[in-house]
Amino acid sequence: MFENSQKTDLSQLGEFGLIEHLTKNIKLHHTNTIKGVGDDAAVIKNGDYLTVITTDMLTEGVHFDLIYTPLKHLGYKAITCNLSDICAMNATPKQVTVSMALSSKFSVEAVEELYSGMLLACEKYKVDLIGGDTTSSKTGLTISITAIGETTEEKIAYRNTAKEKDLLVVSGDLGGAYTGLQVLEREKRIFLESPQVQPDLEGFDYILERQLKPEARIDVVEYLQEIGVVPTSMIDISDGLASEINHICRQSGVGCDLYEEKIPIDPQTYDTARSFNLDPTICALHGGEDYELLFTIKMEDYEKIKGSPLLTVIGHITEKAQGVRLIDKAGNAHNIELKGWNAFSK
Amino acid sequence: MFENSQKTDLSQLGEFGLIEHLTKNIKLHHTNTIKGVGDDAAVIKNGDYLTVITTDMLTEGVHFDLIYTPLKHLGYKAITCNLSDICAMNATPKQVTVSMALSSKFSVEAVEELYSGMLLACEKYKVDLIGGDTTSSKTGLTISITAIGETTEEKIAYRNTAKEKDLLVVSGDLGGAYTGLQVLEREKRIFLESPQVQPDLEGFDYILERQLKPEARIDVVEYLQEIGVVPTSMIDISDGLASEINHICRQSGVGCDLYEEKIPIDPQTYDTARSFNLDPTICALHGGEDYELLFTIKMEDYEKIKGSPLLTVIGHITEKAQGVRLIDKAGNAHNIELKGWNAFSK
Repeated sequence: MFENSQKTDLSQLGEFGLIEHLTKNIKLHHTNTIKGVGDDAAVIKNGDYLTVITTDMLTEGVHFDLIYTPLKHLGYKAITCNLSDICAMNATPKQVTVSMALSSKFSVEAVEELYSGMLLACEKYKVDLIGGDTTSSKTGLTISITAIGETTEEKIAYRNTAKEKDLLVVSGDLGGAYTGLQVLEREKRIFLESPQVQPDLEGFDYILERQLKPEARIDVVEYLQEIGVVPTSMIDISDGLASEINHICRQSGVGCDLYEEKIPIDPQTYDTARSFNLDPTICALHGGEDYELLFTIKMEDYEKIKGSPLLTVIGHITEKAQGVRLIDKAGNAHNIELKGWNAFSK
Repeated sequence: MFENSQKTDLSQLGEFGLIEHLTKNIKLHHTNTIKGVGDDAAVIKNGDYLTVITTDMLTEGVHFDLIYTPLKHLGYKAITCNLSDICAMNATPKQVTVSMALSSKFSVEAVEELYSGMLLACEKYKVDLIGGDTTSSKTGLTISITAIGETTEEKIAYRNTAKEKDLLVVSGDLGGAYTGLQVLEREKRIFLESPQVQPDLEGFDYILERQLKPEARIDVVEYLQEIGVVPTSMIDISDGLASEINHICRQSGVGCDLYEEKIPIDPQTYDTARSFNLDPTICALHGGEDYELLFTIKMEDYEKIKGSPLLTVIGHITEKAQGVRLIDKAGNAHNIELKGWNAFSK
């Protein structure tokens, strides 16, 4: 009944472009709104504390495939990937709300499975599920989670505050979630061709868990607190190291040298990538969904983190003009383009 | 690849039943989580203030029909119906986050329209849009909004604290949104049969606006503050007066007598209902989406609200054993059943 004349395809702007386009004219009214759009989470000042808030939407067929994702794992992951955004502000997650839109193909038992995974994550991370919305959809499942956390002005770490000469640090190892996804996609293809064949997932435990049941690195946030290190900037790795490092550098107005040989990659990730004819470094750079923390620290804090099994120094911040570079194993420099996941790509 | 054996249909439990079923085992970990699931919004204590948080999910084809809903109006309504939940805690809305999942049928211009309606509501209600998520979906549009507000322990109004002899009060008038929907549904049927016929919406301005562009009654929250009245309980009318009054009574362990002749109904609502052969009282009781505030006050506060054009006293709270009753114009009492909207009904 109502028509819109001009039509520009969403994929032309991409996810980040669309968000930037839509949010560029936002005006803030409240002085206690410290940070709006543009970081892992928004920040609101409440007396002595900062409340950080983040929200994420997951849609069936785009963010998850129910053919190989057990509902309990999906519920768990939906929570942890939001808690990860809270951790990425150097904050402690405290509460979540959960909204779901479900089509009639889902049974009560299926929703119970999904919810039990969510509650398991809440239990593990000592987070309160305080509300939400449960409603129906015409097709498939959509999950929207909002997570709320707490930190202080002394501790909070934004994306746009990295400084030249800071060290670039990453927690855990990278590329596992992406190679785990390759295994699941292969088994799906086999299953669709021959449904009687049992999926062969043996020997892939670690990377499958990285894909299906990622954890939020609250232990890293706690460890940094313990050793008295406040990151100069921080982000979580949801879209891949290359994309996240570009966010930090672009928003901070700096460049970065990242050393390929330093990137932590688990042997199972490495071997699986090779068996799929994939370059393990590319999996780590562009794979995404590892939910590790990427952050910068002052050079003088190096002694404090040295030797920690949780953390690896993978590079350092440079001046902006030098760009964001990967120094490969042969010592050659390459520009790292922002090749994160675009939700609207076709 | 993974199968679930038992299957109970979602519609067997209904929306409220499902939420109750899923949330009954939730354990809270934080002492500053004052109120979890079960009210219009959750409540977190932050120093001297209470932060209230609510979230809502809207799916295309279930909560809105894009054939007759202009995207700008949809954006506006998506925000205001969340702000209404904040108002229903006797709190002031401060921030919102907005998540959207969009299929490729939406153009950048369409998303701009939607977003402009959201920003218009934020501007009108002086609310900060602080974050969100924009992603793709396989089909249609899903919107998830989280609203954050502020109040104090002295002011906050829950659903479960109505007391016998309290007066039952409603803001504005009821049934308009539902009768507006009837007009839009009629024009849709005509449009689908004869797309060349222009929709005939003249003379229905008020009820169409009630349906397409409802407001959040922050003016009522401010007025109550001004005259020094704190409701003993409060809820917003999203599912219809009958459903909301049952929530208050069930959760407070009380009954209620509601007087049919007192229910405020606009003449346009009344006439339109009649022209559709609908009982205007039924539209007010079960129509929903009016986003007015329903609350109880102590009898001694009556003098303070008397004569206010914003408010109407429609009944009073009774003992539980008496049940939730409608006293009709002839003086006969009828039990009001909970007939709110069930998202999972078929």
